[in-house]
Amino acid sequence: MSDSFGTITLTTDFGHKGPFVAVMKAVIFGRFPGARIIDLTHEIHAHWPVEAGFWLAKSFRYFPPGSVHIAVVDPGVGTARDIIIAQFEGHTFLAPDNGLLHSVFEGGSPNMYKLSNSWLKAQNWQPCSPTFHGRDIFAPLAAELSAGRLAPADAGQLTQEIAPSPVEPANWQRDAIHGTIISIDNFGNLISNIESSQLKRLRVPVVQAAGKSFAMHRTYGNCRPGELLALTNSFGVIEISRVNSSAAETLGLGRGAPVVVRESARGG
Amino acid sequence: MSDSFGTITLTTDFGHKGPFVAVMKAVIFGRFPGARIIDLTHEIHAHWPVEAGFWLAKSFRYFPPGSVHIAVVDPGVGTARDIIIAQFEGHTFLAPDNGLLHSVFEGGSPNMYKLSNSWLKAQNWQPCSPTFHGRDIFAPLAAELSAGRLAPADAGQLTQEIAPSPVEPANWQRDAIHGTIISIDNFGNLISNIESSQLKRLRVPVVQAAGKSFAMHRTYGNCRPGELLALTNSFGVIEISRVNSSAAETLGLGRGAPVVVRESARGG
Amino acid sequence: MSDSFGTITLTTDFGHKGPFVAVMKAVIFGRFPGARIIDLTHEIHAHWPVEAGFWLAKSFRYFPPGSVHIAVVDPGVGTARDIIIAQFEGHTFLAPDNGLLHSVFEGGSPNMYKLSNSWLKAQNWQPCSPTFHGRDIFAPLAAELSAGRLAPADAGQLTQEIAPSPVEPANWQRDAIHGTIISIDNFGNLISNIESSQLKRLRVPVVQAAGKSFAMHRTYGNCRPGELLALTNSFGVIEISRVNSSAAETLGLGRGAPVVVRESARGG
Repeated sequence: MSDSFGTITLTTDFGHKGPFVAVMKAVIFGRFPGARIIDLTHEIHAHWPVEAGFWLAKSFRYFPPGSVHIAVVDPGVGTARDIIIAQFEGHTFLAPDNGLLHSVFEGGSPNMYKLSNSWLKAQNWQPCSPTFHGRDIFAPLAAELSAGRLAPADAGQLTQEIAPSPVEPANWQRDAIHGTIISIDNFGNLISNIESSQLKRLRVPVVQAAGKSFAMHRTYGNCRPGELLALTNSFGVIEISRVNSSAAETLGLGRGAPVVVRESARGG
Repeated sequence: MSDSFGTITLTTDFGHKGPFVAVMKAVIFGRFPGARIIDLTHEIHAHWPVEAGFWLAKSFRYFPPGSVHIAVVDPGVGTARDIIIAQFEGHTFLAPDNGLLHSVFEGGSPNMYKLSNSWLKAQNWQPCSPTFHGRDIFAPLAAELSAGRLAPADAGQLTQEIAPSPVEPANWQRDAIHGTIISIDNFGNLISNIESSQLKRLRVPVVQAAGKSFAMHRTYGNCRPGELLALTNSFGVIEISRVNSSAAETLGLGRGAPVVVRESARGG
Repeated sequence: MSDSFGTITLTTDFGHKGPFVAVMKAVIFGRFPGARIIDLTHEIHAHWPVEAGFWLAKSFRYFPPGSVHIAVVDPGVGTARDIIIAQFEGHTFLAPDNGLLHSVFEGGSPNMYKLSNSWLKAQNWQPCSPTFHGRDIFAPLAAELSAGRLAPADAGQLTQEIAPSPVEPANWQRDAIHGTIISIDNFGNLISNIESSQLKRLRVPVVQAAGKSFAMHRTYGNCRPGELLALTNSFGVIEISRVNSSAAETLGLGRGAPVVVRESARGG
């Protein structure tokens, strides 16, 4: 591996049917054979940019500085929505301007650019489909950026404002932290946007969702099979889990459901 | 990356359970460590070669000339069906002779070879299972071809004839183009084999399936959530879609279903 | 590809939702950019280590000697369960000590080590989550082993004993071989742990499960669509299959179900 080596990650809601991800990779390698492409996930809940931003925020720091992260969850593809190129903590992010990136930069100071349509047209990339910008815009753009042949400022105008997230960050309201279920993993664990750091002032926190309360534990294996529990998961957020089973199915909860953490009545 | 670099793509109906794809990759890398293997898709509808050929036809030109494309959707594995090696537009294709490749070469002039059983036996590759030619024949064959150590003519006899596709190309019958649903993507979009170029003589085309009619639009985001529409998708074919939802589930349609495009009554 | 090249395979029950596999890859590449990471499968039946061990046993010899195989199916993550590093036939295996590895080494003589907690703490790897050892222990460990910077004996104590498999190997009891369904592939084939070599003393073997009997055939294509059959699959074990359909769904069988092979009444 040489200096020309560049990591590009892909986050989409394309799933694994059809060649959609593969042709994005073909376009990237065609322009930058030295790329190392890593699939972050292609199973973002369809049409829900919030989950893509959440996982990117939690994951990008595991990749080397200089990485380019493409996130395409893009129900507005082909409409007037902008495309954002952003630099943050040494990483570059490409996504539609639909709220996806908002949570990635929360509390930080990214340099953000709106992709210029005139610049794009001047590139003479192959004809752009109105329904697959992943292949026709994001992939070549990422390749050029990753290969070091393009800087964000070349391709777009600096902007201070990007679309807000449709989901508020978890926050204190009176006596409780109010958050939202953002993702459900393969085990049916319900993963919220409540950061464990937000629980510091609670002595014995209890997690509440779907009209039920869940005690906090350190890990799944500390509870009995079938038991429901809450814990701080490996990405530092509050998760509701059912041992060896699916909390999502058991509780009938999905993305966007409200979650609350408060002081346990027993802990008060 | 050096001159020995070779791209190999994999298209199968193996899904992602079990190590089937992984051992194909192990066999390829064992013979040709310089290969770059890209998964086109492993979620072809089980036992339906038509979809594999369709996506290969639409995708292969995104890969560099010299690429080797393995397609294994092979309900007849281990029976007397032949294996085809074909060269077309600088690419090499390997697939069972079951109609899979027919649509890839439509209207073109590939050089096609039937793999020779005597040549195969003489290779002394490890014992060949009657149920996993992907690992035991296609993978080593692709590695040797990609590495430039083998030419198709070494391994097979030239042939003019391969098995026809079980699905007819979309075609004009009287006043309408008759086509077929070939694939359903992760969003539930119904993807047909009707090329947008076939619609040229229509002023206001309307797409019909499942007893319903769908107006053509430019992109999903031009319609309201929940609305059904038709469009030319990013691979140039007619697709029926439901905004932020699944057209396949809504309409109860699947692979093989008939689709028709004709002049709109309003457009006449 | 140079001498620093090392193959690392990943076998998990993480599925493809979320960035869990991707961050493991990021951690590995961060420590060992020369790694070649191959996904064996991430669709092991959740919380069932038996299937992971089964597929590893059947697959690892396709990879080059020196490969490091990570298997994380780990319902006890974060509890007192040990982590095993084992060397066997020139390959290195990393897995929780929960029975996963037992079948991989069956009949052989691996060198096995229990990871030392004091060694682990001394590494000062980044804070270890109690719920994601795949990222925080297995990935960095595999990278160091694969890069040749670490030997198993450096990181753990030699042990003779690892946790037994919760599933017995298939074995003769009176007049029949008794085995277990270990895996179901994408086609719904029911894959047992009965080795075809165990059938040698049978003249006309018949496979029995779910109260039904299945004749043995050479390959799927020798039977009619919809027909149920048994065969020796491509990994040398007995499988129950339904042509162009799902035996698992048809028979209502799943992982752990008993299977028997005996002399056919007709063959006696």
